[in-house]
Amino acid sequence: MRPTHLSILGVGLLGGSIGLAAKSVLTNCKITGYAHRMQTRNLALQVGAIDQAASSIPEAIDGADLVILCTPVGLFESFLSEIAPALAKGTIVTDVGSTKRSIVRAANRLLGRKHRFVGSHPMAGSEKRGVEFARADLFRNALCLLTPDKRTDAGALAEVAAFWKLLGMRTTQLSPDKHDRILATISHLPHLAAAVLVAMQDPAAMNLAGKGFLDTTRIASGDGALWRDILLDNRDSMLAGIGKMEKLLKQARGWLKNGDGEAIRAFLDEAAQRRDQLLKAKLREINQD
Amino acid sequence: MRPTHLSILGVGLLGGSIGLAAKSVLTNCKITGYAHRMQTRNLALQVGAIDQAASSIPEAIDGADLVILCTPVGLFESFLSEIAPALAKGTIVTDVGSTKRSIVRAANRLLGRKHRFVGSHPMAGSEKRGVEFARADLFRNALCLLTPDKRTDAGALAEVAAFWKLLGMRTTQLSPDKHDRILATISHLPHLAAAVLVAMQDPAAMNLAGKGFLDTTRIASGDGALWRDILLDNRDSMLAGIGKMEKLLKQARGWLKNGDGEAIRAFLDEAAQRRDQLLKAKLREINQD
Repeated sequence: MRPTHLSILGVGLLGGSIGLAAKSVLTNCKITGYAHRMQTRNLALQVGAIDQAASSIPEAIDGADLVILCTPVGLFESFLSEIAPALAKGTIVTDVGSTKRSIVRAANRLLGRKHRFVGSHPMAGSEKRGVEFARADLFRNALCLLTPDKRTDAGALAEVAAFWKLLGMRTTQLSPDKHDRILATISHLPHLAAAVLVAMQDPAAMNLAGKGFLDTTRIASGDGALWRDILLDNRDSMLAGIGKMEKLLKQARGWLKNGDGEAIRAFLDEAAQRRDQLLKAKLREINQD
Repeated sequence: MRPTHLSILGVGLLGGSIGLAAKSVLTNCKITGYAHRMQTRNLALQVGAIDQAASSIPEAIDGADLVILCTPVGLFESFLSEIAPALAKGTIVTDVGSTKRSIVRAANRLLGRKHRFVGSHPMAGSEKRGVEFARADLFRNALCLLTPDKRTDAGALAEVAAFWKLLGMRTTQLSPDKHDRILATISHLPHLAAAVLVAMQDPAAMNLAGKGFLDTTRIASGDGALWRDILLDNRDSMLAGIGKMEKLLKQARGWLKNGDGEAIRAFLDEAAQRRDQLLKAKLREINQD
């Protein structure tokens, strides 16, 4: 898909980066951005992420062939409600949310019988927030997860996949359920764990933090309201993930109590090996580019 | 202190980096390195981390004015036992271990009444292992913790501090007890938590890991045997740290169950704020250089 009129609802880090990336690869595409705050709209215009700023949702999506929801997860439902009556037939809608069950359900409920909504989760981002951190190359080499269900229009799915590929991403498909279950353990729980690791430190300990601690907790610098939405939206998977983590911590506690060095070494070495394999696979992906 | 003959026992990443760093700032200093394996000794000579390789500990410390123990924590006691009978009067001994109570106790017990041992913990390193990753600038801008107790020789303490400063580090002092308690929460528990976050992933989840997960789990790529020694040596503080982490996870579980978004947001935002402050402080330290 090469959209000729792209509408970005929410021009923060992700929405702004989509605008910049689209501009860098599409010569004939008008980009309209919507943001609630005037200051954000002006900033998005200034950094060149959008061509025109809309101050209402109907205005923002008017004439667009592709609408991309880039708001926090907690606002998806209200945005879809506002989009629905103003949406032209045939316009494709997608999103960039970190959870997928709720928005796919909401789209099916709110956008009418023959909607062309496709759930997307481009796995790119930053702990930073705001269009001032937007980058045209944010999506390059990253993976975009597409989460069709039985109501998803096959043509729209293909077009959305083609659009993300245009921005430099690879795409893969999985069900909204599977997406949320997997993302809970590989992304949402690590975020909570990083925040917990910060929260448990005394000020005296923070003074002695090294580079390792800064890396381990980088994602904890993310925006609290944005992550609250994600964690709450995915709460059943989060609870299961916390349970898994607690179980492994309890196991480690037992090894430490019993002085079972061999079990500890084996556990740590296996984790090191799996993480190294992951790193190698990631480097291969990047070098294939 | 400007040693004229430095003895490095264990020439891995840290020992090798000390050799390279010392060579870059000291013009008249002979560096002898000891390693159990011939291959390691040869590699250390090849990369220029040491001037001469010793194949026994008495040979390695003969004539040295400063001996630095750079072996895994679990080997400290046996190395100190071997050092003790061969140690010349006045020779200063220090180490680079990540735990401090056990080595300070062992030095007091094994090195004689008027020993000149000083516990050090240069907070620099890498998840990588081996002298092939040694770097002359590994210690630049990093913090070195010195852990004197009532038996520590004041002159030796000052000399060891001066040596680390020569290599580009800042130094600070705290008791061995306080060191181990603080390091458990700021370093040792994060290591375990990172390993747990890897261990809990299904292969399908690993395939979807992004940059955030790679950063959060970077330290989990560290050597298992090396970290087993650290965790076991600091097991009482580790158990207390695991307890703190479990308590916070339980609290988060409650918030998720009750849908208490405000508590989640406040918790995440406070963690983000504290982590951002830490990052700013770290950047200031580096820029002061």
